[in-house]
Amino acid sequence: MSPTEDSTHVQRGYSERKDDYRKRLRRIEGQVKGIARMVEEDAYCIDILTQVSAANKALQAVALGLLDEHMAHCVLDAARSGGPDGEAKLREASDAIARLVRS
Amino acid sequence: MSPTEDSTHVQRGYSERKDDYRKRLRRIEGQVKGIARMVEEDAYCIDILTQVSAANKALQAVALGLLDEHMAHCVLDAARSGGPDGEAKLREASDAIARLVRS
Amino acid sequence: MSPTEDSTHVQRGYSERKDDYRKRLRRIEGQVKGIARMVEEDAYCIDILTQVSAANKALQAVALGLLDEHMAHCVLDAARSGGPDGEAKLREASDAIARLVRS
Amino acid sequence: MSPTEDSTHVQRGYSERKDDYRKRLRRIEGQVKGIARMVEEDAYCIDILTQVSAANKALQAVALGLLDEHMAHCVLDAARSGGPDGEAKLREASDAIARLVRS
Repeated sequence: MSPTEDSTHVQRGYSERKDDYRKRLRRIEGQVKGIARMVEEDAYCIDILTQVSAANKALQAVALGLLDEHMAHCVLDAARSGGPDGEAKLREASDAIARLVRS
Repeated sequence: MSPTEDSTHVQRGYSERKDDYRKRLRRIEGQVKGIARMVEEDAYCIDILTQVSAANKALQAVALGLLDEHMAHCVLDAARSGGPDGEAKLREASDAIARLVRS
Repeated sequence: MSPTEDSTHVQRGYSERKDDYRKRLRRIEGQVKGIARMVEEDAYCIDILTQVSAANKALQAVALGLLDEHMAHCVLDAARSGGPDGEAKLREASDAIARLVRS
Repeated sequence: MSPTEDSTHVQRGYSERKDDYRKRLRRIEGQVKGIARMVEEDAYCIDILTQVSAANKALQAVALGLLDEHMAHCVLDAARSGGPDGEAKLREASDAIARLVRS
């Protein structure tokens, strides 16, 4: 599946667990809002940093989950169908992994 | 300054740049909301991962900024006033750094 | 290819670039030796930290390279041959990625 | 203490625990040598990645330890003696922390 096609009728690797991701992202949004509020109220620096680390970890867990499902669906499918598409998908996944490791 | 005291009348190391942090955190909140929307709309996995990496980097930059100002104010002040408070503040900052490095 | 089989007659995903990895790892070994020498000679802390960050980045780059080649060979092969082996290989790769992201 | 002065007669923040750091760095050197040997012997990719993650974590722990002691000695001393040196030392420490967080 190409990233450029119309995504509204597409099944993604993560589609089955969409609700779960939605909830987790909503919670992270709340965490970031909470961090902004702490800054607003002059909260103690170290307490803010603790919250930032927690939000980072939660985002990272979302990313690792999405990546897993992407590899288990998109990448495997492309690999099975053979041809250069499998390699392109792999390259793309590798680049995303490198960005995650470095972020 | 102890983390337990009433924080509403307290100047923090980051207080002068509060507006800046507020804006950056608002932008990160928007990024997270955008990621949730991408999941909602079955966006392509790799594109979502790119946004997660960007949000992570932005949160990390906020954390490093807060930490800098915390060390330049709280920690230095505590150190200058001498005594065990300076060491306690340092220990606390070290722990926060370790959490950041590992998150 | 199972991790338990005799590895001496096995082709790995990275086998073609073995020389390259050997050289890079030798260089990292030298970096770590250099860090030990700096400690020995009471070098300035911050200079040591700079070297540690460099060694970490170099190790990370080796890991990302090995992972790429692993996915491009082992994982794709297992996927193409079908069956549960492909999924097992993917799970294993995902776990390794998570460890890298968190280390 | 300036990083440019002759370091052979200088006490560093980590000097008291030098033996400990020496041992840990020797162990990490051994880990890297082991990784090179694994590549040499065509070991299974994932097993190599596990060792790389372990070496990375060990290096990171050394860095965090050195940083702690640096802040508890150099930075506090400079802060106590007042003046621009304290701020310069802090800036330097902040930069090292940012490099660690990003490496």
